[in-house]
Amino acid sequence: MNAYNHPAIQYYQDVSEQCIHYLSIDGVIFGFHENQLKVLLLRWKGTTEWSLPGGFIRKTESVDVAAQRVVRERTGLDELYLQQFHVFGEAERYDQADTWARTKLPIQQVNWSERTISIGYYALVEYSKVVPTPDFLTEECCWWNVDDIPPLLFDHNHIVAVALSSLRRQFADQPISHLLPSAFTVPELQRLHETILGQPLDARNFYKKLMASGTLERLSERRAGTPHKAPYLYRFKPTDI
Amino acid sequence: MNAYNHPAIQYYQDVSEQCIHYLSIDGVIFGFHENQLKVLLLRWKGTTEWSLPGGFIRKTESVDVAAQRVVRERTGLDELYLQQFHVFGEAERYDQADTWARTKLPIQQVNWSERTISIGYYALVEYSKVVPTPDFLTEECCWWNVDDIPPLLFDHNHIVAVALSSLRRQFADQPISHLLPSAFTVPELQRLHETILGQPLDARNFYKKLMASGTLERLSERRAGTPHKAPYLYRFKPTDI
Repeated sequence: MNAYNHPAIQYYQDVSEQCIHYLSIDGVIFGFHENQLKVLLLRWKGTTEWSLPGGFIRKTESVDVAAQRVVRERTGLDELYLQQFHVFGEAERYDQADTWARTKLPIQQVNWSERTISIGYYALVEYSKVVPTPDFLTEECCWWNVDDIPPLLFDHNHIVAVALSSLRRQFADQPISHLLPSAFTVPELQRLHETILGQPLDARNFYKKLMASGTLERLSERRAGTPHKAPYLYRFKPTDI
Repeated sequence: MNAYNHPAIQYYQDVSEQCIHYLSIDGVIFGFHENQLKVLLLRWKGTTEWSLPGGFIRKTESVDVAAQRVVRERTGLDELYLQQFHVFGEAERYDQADTWARTKLPIQQVNWSERTISIGYYALVEYSKVVPTPDFLTEECCWWNVDDIPPLLFDHNHIVAVALSSLRRQFADQPISHLLPSAFTVPELQRLHETILGQPLDARNFYKKLMASGTLERLSERRAGTPHKAPYLYRFKPTDI
């Protein structure tokens, strides 16, 4: 394919007509699986380069709705916990020539905006429910452990770092009700918090604070198949959704 | 003055050429005086209508720098504690026709953007150092008690409310080092926190947490002119700035 009929050209022409110039959305989609915090990344077609999912805001679309659309298209999920966390508004966020060369897109024809201010959102999703789906500029969409993320396109490593510190701050004092399946044990929830904080928590204090939060209810079932005495399952009370 | 030579027309023409369309900045500038939390508001020329200070982002200007500029122009302060707190991105944030009628601007000639997405920043400033300064669309700039704010133009009451809840969340677990003069007593700092939280705090717990934070140092002077035994003055350690 030569540069003159690259599908990205039509795409960016449409974006330029239908979307708000200078603005974009980047989505940091967090999942939790086998005691690892994970982020959904996309590999660009014909390259070994990865980035976060992203998109643009239609001229009459709410910014939150645009963010939901971006995350829905990559995960298949309709109901999402989505949190706006930061605007990345530096005049020069990254080396544009270098980045576009790495994407292998025909820069002269797709560079519709001299500069992009990105609104960062993070999503907390249930890992097992996600169907990772690339977009038409990318050929692979998959989970990466947060600790193993490669050098990303644009300033996306920085965006992941800011998302992670926002997530830590937000859930320093409340239990995270979004990344686990609907029924879980207290040790499973504790491991989620420990993974996000990057440090161990005292089990007794964690349990006490959790019960004091009043957000959980114990189910009558226990976790089957555990070697020790089977622990009770809990869920978040419906009003907390 | 008739609508055709209104100075706002030239202003919005310049903005349209030099600034990023669809985007604006709104600044919630908090001060603290006589145990009241205050916000700086502007009264629009020839009206009794008030709004927050705001402005636009130049095409090659960082968003943070634009926000600093907006706040500096209204306060005279160069060094500011400024915190981005939310993007107001609804497709229809307020009734445009009603708002423009209230501003008495010639809407047909100044309405350079069908829609504005606003990036909200709050600033924490030292009340006594501020020189409130209107811009050329407004004729009065002054402090209002947060509890007495009138119905504002645009969606600015909503923006103030979101700023206030962000401020409360941010300083739930750390002392606020930005709204008081450089030397202050512990009861003065406690009253600042109580005012922002809207509820009384236990003096002994407040003192204990404050000392545990390790951010304060006691000066050798005491507060003069107090009826009781003069309390010590404190300041934040320089590294905390």
